[in-house]
Amino acid sequence: MGIVDRWLLPDGVEDILPSQAKRLEEVRRRLLDLFSTWGYDYVIPPMIEYLESLLTGTGRDLDLKTFKVVDFLTGRTMGVRADITPQVARIDAHSLNSDGVARLCYAGTVVQAQADSMLANRTPLSVGAELFGDSTSKADTEIVSLMIESLKFLGFDAVHVDLGNVDIFRQLMSGFALNTDQQELLFEAVQRKSVAEIGEHCEAFGLSEGDTFLLTQLPGLTGSNSVLERARSLFKAHEGILASIDNLQQVSDTIACRFTDLDVYFDLSELRGYAYHTGIVFAAYVNGSRSVVAKGGRYDHIGQVFGREARGATGFSIDVRSLTEKVKLPEESRKRIWVPEVPTGEEDSLWQRIKQLRSEGYIVVESGQPDGFDHHLDFLNGQWQLVSGDK
Amino acid sequence: MGIVDRWLLPDGVEDILPSQAKRLEEVRRRLLDLFSTWGYDYVIPPMIEYLESLLTGTGRDLDLKTFKVVDFLTGRTMGVRADITPQVARIDAHSLNSDGVARLCYAGTVVQAQADSMLANRTPLSVGAELFGDSTSKADTEIVSLMIESLKFLGFDAVHVDLGNVDIFRQLMSGFALNTDQQELLFEAVQRKSVAEIGEHCEAFGLSEGDTFLLTQLPGLTGSNSVLERARSLFKAHEGILASIDNLQQVSDTIACRFTDLDVYFDLSELRGYAYHTGIVFAAYVNGSRSVVAKGGRYDHIGQVFGREARGATGFSIDVRSLTEKVKLPEESRKRIWVPEVPTGEEDSLWQRIKQLRSEGYIVVESGQPDGFDHHLDFLNGQWQLVSGDK
Repeated sequence: MGIVDRWLLPDGVEDILPSQAKRLEEVRRRLLDLFSTWGYDYVIPPMIEYLESLLTGTGRDLDLKTFKVVDFLTGRTMGVRADITPQVARIDAHSLNSDGVARLCYAGTVVQAQADSMLANRTPLSVGAELFGDSTSKADTEIVSLMIESLKFLGFDAVHVDLGNVDIFRQLMSGFALNTDQQELLFEAVQRKSVAEIGEHCEAFGLSEGDTFLLTQLPGLTGSNSVLERARSLFKAHEGILASIDNLQQVSDTIACRFTDLDVYFDLSELRGYAYHTGIVFAAYVNGSRSVVAKGGRYDHIGQVFGREARGATGFSIDVRSLTEKVKLPEESRKRIWVPEVPTGEEDSLWQRIKQLRSEGYIVVESGQPDGFDHHLDFLNGQWQLVSGDK
Repeated sequence: MGIVDRWLLPDGVEDILPSQAKRLEEVRRRLLDLFSTWGYDYVIPPMIEYLESLLTGTGRDLDLKTFKVVDFLTGRTMGVRADITPQVARIDAHSLNSDGVARLCYAGTVVQAQADSMLANRTPLSVGAELFGDSTSKADTEIVSLMIESLKFLGFDAVHVDLGNVDIFRQLMSGFALNTDQQELLFEAVQRKSVAEIGEHCEAFGLSEGDTFLLTQLPGLTGSNSVLERARSLFKAHEGILASIDNLQQVSDTIACRFTDLDVYFDLSELRGYAYHTGIVFAAYVNGSRSVVAKGGRYDHIGQVFGREARGATGFSIDVRSLTEKVKLPEESRKRIWVPEVPTGEEDSLWQRIKQLRSEGYIVVESGQPDGFDHHLDFLNGQWQLVSGDK
């Protein structure tokens, strides 16, 4: 390959250059500082670990997204993390292993062998929060509130939230005697919201008219608050499903009260992360854009696969890069000062002056082109003085 | 593998738990903020990229340290970065491609397939600064000064700096007619500081008595400032080597003037990063510890391999994790507040009160065990009041 090609980056892989990098760092800090005031403790899981622990309880999607490498020391396969949430769940289950409620947060790059779409970034910066040890709606409400507050805190007024609960579909399916292939086909049909396909499958699998009706109604259960009433009347014979609907109601009532101008959309056939999630699932959008900037849900089973008792788990993550450009941040207000050649014998006085200016918040640059600065230093009357404009 | 094994991490791979993670984040922010006042712009190179660009001009060591993965989209080999400096040099050469002096800094995790030692961390957090477009001693002085200032800024008083210049050995070798294998053998003998081996090789390779003398003297050129005088007299016939010694003299004179209590040790046979470095090399230690916490050097050639004109390049990186435990940071001063169950109808007043307290810097926790808090909220006389101690 020629010299010219050497600097080409793979598709979905990018350098983040100064102006953007500075914004991203600012967003990262604001989010971690906000999480901290909610009692979330920062943890840093490693970039690589054994594949078993990285993929445990997570499903095939994450497996396909995970780059595998061999550990030279042991010959075992490691993965480069494509998701941080399972790592944080492992930390909760083992490294911390506290009995009560645990609140953890993180900020780190993940690497995806396959991106979600052609244009998607394959090394997103993921900042998120996870709440363990509380299986109630209160925990879901806290997590959804923190997600919305994060976006509000970054200056987004128009926040849109999608709410669903994968346990509705799971409970329905558990009532049918279907094999794995049949379940998979129905899952795909519901995910595509194809009522015709759902109906065909139901007939082929010999489901009752009543069950078929419930399944074909599912894709239509989308929209505003009234969806929950319609769902309650549809599933009035399913106690477990009514509890899942109550969970959605409690979360949505509280966030509607906490955040005015919030735009909430229910979708009871949303099955995102079905292999992984066990209850409520949610996604957030800002500024009318159709790309998800934050998402999450409940995933109660994960503690068990790490050898711990079943333990509530709910959380969200923000794709920081996807929203950094949209965030309004204050302009750089610090002044830039250029430093000229030093007259012999004045090195020390100059150094002391520069140190002082830097500690006062000035940006002081010691060499390079003397253009585009707010001030320069000049040695006048035996002193280093700040002079306006370029030298 | 059993459930119990799932959470084991590979050797040299660790979770960073809350107390340590908080310190690490604080150190990271302080360093980036300091770099910013020196005019260094933050950039974020990607975690993965094509192997050619990642390893270009870097030598075999880095190749062995780099995990390789195949890009599903193109079938080409990518590497997980084991070093960020070559990426920043690529950004300088291509993504920015400015003519003058460029100052860039970074903070990110690197992943090492093989660690430097059995006990070393394989996913260190590397925070560093690079100065491009200035081949003079002034640039080296700025970079070494910034490295020392970084450590002082973190509260380390006792900073020890090792200084060397790989160009002394390189210039000596360029004067001999030796093949690659012979050069490699001499390089290894010098790196081991084995005078006897150097002598044997010189005899076997038919080097003159004078050249043998110079090479065998090299390992002894270690110690304080007087080493430079001895080196000047030894290499008085080598104009190029005298210039390399002058470079060391200028850097060491300036840092001695800028930083009092600095402990500088010269080692003119230090060949760390020989494949990569082209001039001065340096390493820093703190608190009398023998492990390097920061290191760097000049690497002028790298712009060329990225298809750009030869361009000065010098920089350093800090292994943040290796020094975080030693840093003295202020204790957490924020108070923690516990929130009880909400009486019906008071959800909104509670939420407003919590928001206010969080914005004032309190940590407010909404559920979990009400133990170990500084205050709790209580609804008394129709108001949410802050009460000292646990509920």
